[in-house]
Amino acid sequence: MDNNRTMFGIPDEEFIRDKVPMTKSEVRAIAISKLRLNPTSRVLDIGCGTGSITVECGLICNQGEVTAIDQKEEAVNITRKNVNKFELNNVNIIEGSAPNDIPKKNYDSIFLGGGSRHIDNIIDFATDHLVPEGVFVANTILIDSTYKILAALEGRFKDIDVAMVQVSKGHKIAGWMMKANNPIYIISARLM
Amino acid sequence: MDNNRTMFGIPDEEFIRDKVPMTKSEVRAIAISKLRLNPTSRVLDIGCGTGSITVECGLICNQGEVTAIDQKEEAVNITRKNVNKFELNNVNIIEGSAPNDIPKKNYDSIFLGGGSRHIDNIIDFATDHLVPEGVFVANTILIDSTYKILAALEGRFKDIDVAMVQVSKGHKIAGWMMKANNPIYIISARLM
Repeated sequence: MDNNRTMFGIPDEEFIRDKVPMTKSEVRAIAISKLRLNPTSRVLDIGCGTGSITVECGLICNQGEVTAIDQKEEAVNITRKNVNKFELNNVNIIEGSAPNDIPKKNYDSIFLGGGSRHIDNIIDFATDHLVPEGVFVANTILIDSTYKILAALEGRFKDIDVAMVQVSKGHKIAGWMMKANNPIYIISARLM
Repeated sequence: MDNNRTMFGIPDEEFIRDKVPMTKSEVRAIAISKLRLNPTSRVLDIGCGTGSITVECGLICNQGEVTAIDQKEEAVNITRKNVNKFELNNVNIIEGSAPNDIPKKNYDSIFLGGGSRHIDNIIDFATDHLVPEGVFVANTILIDSTYKILAALEGRFKDIDVAMVQVSKGHKIAGWMMKANNPIYIISARLM
């Protein structure tokens, strides 16, 4: 790995985009910080979308590996383009649905990038496949998913934490005008 | 360095605290992401406070170095305690005022952790001592500092970006109640 390239904090505009949703840089930074990564971490990114979380985890975990899954073909394709752009060789990308098509390996950190119709099954999977003290992180926009994830973590996970983050970005008009992004919930917890 | 310890995303409660202010984990994650660090970065942390930014930069830049400065003796002491706790040997801590007492070296990334009576002088210093494309990041709570920093960056820095971040944290009462932290501005820019 080139020691002089940015290892964390890739600006949004450096990712190849499409119609696929992307977690914006500020929220991405928080989610990644909650994943408690180290260079050897084995990370699972469920619902990888554009692949921005996949790429940033791949850069940090340069002696570990990232498994990325999305059910949409176009998300898998764009994630692959971004993984290639950042010259990562530690990422495994899967087109399929979670949790059924996720490789049944051990993971140190699992990220769920949005809601799912299978929240309970995904958290069952996390409970079975995270290492002890392994970290589960989810970003949600719906109150419904937020509530369901918090409820499903209870009793099996510890250090359950939820942050609601509302970012406004400055736009230079005559002066600086702040324009609001939608509030995002970032949930994190460790397996007991 | 131990490859298995968390390299980024240290929870707030793992830092030794005192009456010195500390940037909370979510805002810290964003600020660090804006610093565009790599393992060899030379970072300057102005107003290091508790030393949480210093420590996280020291962990990421394990082949680089961090210079931390604060004018308060108790901030310098607590930063030193935290640097020792995390067993970092790439951090230089200075008790003194910015910019006068900052070592006149080249830096890849400079972080200003709050306002200062010397904003213009600090940004002059950053202009003189950042490498080309080097990154300046500031966290502010006052509109006044936010405005002054944005105005001082203009014309000498590019990619000027400002995010206002408002984090609410969940507290488990009967159910999850969100309690608001104060909004923080995170300004970032690169030297032209």
